[in-house]
Amino acid sequence: MSLKEVANQLVALCREGKNLEAVETLYSPDVVSVEAAPVPGMEQTMKGIDAVKGKNKWWIDSHEVHGGDVKGPFPHGEDRFAVYFEFDVTPKGTGKRMQMNEVGLYTVKNDKITKEEYFYSMEG
Amino acid sequence: MSLKEVANQLVALCREGKNLEAVETLYSPDVVSVEAAPVPGMEQTMKGIDAVKGKNKWWIDSHEVHGGDVKGPFPHGEDRFAVYFEFDVTPKGTGKRMQMNEVGLYTVKNDKITKEEYFYSMEG
Repeated sequence: MSLKEVANQLVALCREGKNLEAVETLYSPDVVSVEAAPVPGMEQTMKGIDAVKGKNKWWIDSHEVHGGDVKGPFPHGEDRFAVYFEFDVTPKGTGKRMQMNEVGLYTVKNDKITKEEYFYSMEG
Repeated sequence: MSLKEVANQLVALCREGKNLEAVETLYSPDVVSVEAAPVPGMEQTMKGIDAVKGKNKWWIDSHEVHGGDVKGPFPHGEDRFAVYFEFDVTPKGTGKRMQMNEVGLYTVKNDKITKEEYFYSMEG
């Protein structure tokens, strides 16, 4: 697969809410996942596909998703692409509906996503 | 200035269409600017604030801007932030109105933007 194909598949699966399937099919076993900033109770940097699947499952289980939007993919050079996400969610912990916007930056090597870095403001 | 202040100023100036002022006030003299892919007639990577100002002037002169949107900034870690841009423009060369979406990825060192990388699809 080309960078473009990996990117298009990721965006298509995210649009369908199939984020876990995206990790299983498109991510390297050694993927590194980096959040925007340290979060209490969570490692900012996680390594390995099992840790990333765990983080995805936690997010899915702890948020009610009302809607959202996915823009992209936006490629750059031979091995990276970005995606812009909007989420309309209620975290189950707070019960307070909120809008979350973020940019995901993905690095691809040998047709697999080897790194995901999330860009967002902690101020909501 | 903190990363957040540099990022907020960049977004505020871009929202006002003052991109050239953003370069003049927020960019390092040694800034590196990288487009998503090689473009005929333009270097993919430009170095130095004068080259980047020239590219900005070229863009402003060759596009009629009808509107747009700027989302962000979205910080990550100590030294990077992303911005999501939408433009509604007519390139004067084609006269054909089009929508352009892209992600800008910015690296900040010593309170100045030292690198800008643009992520977009060449397919429009």
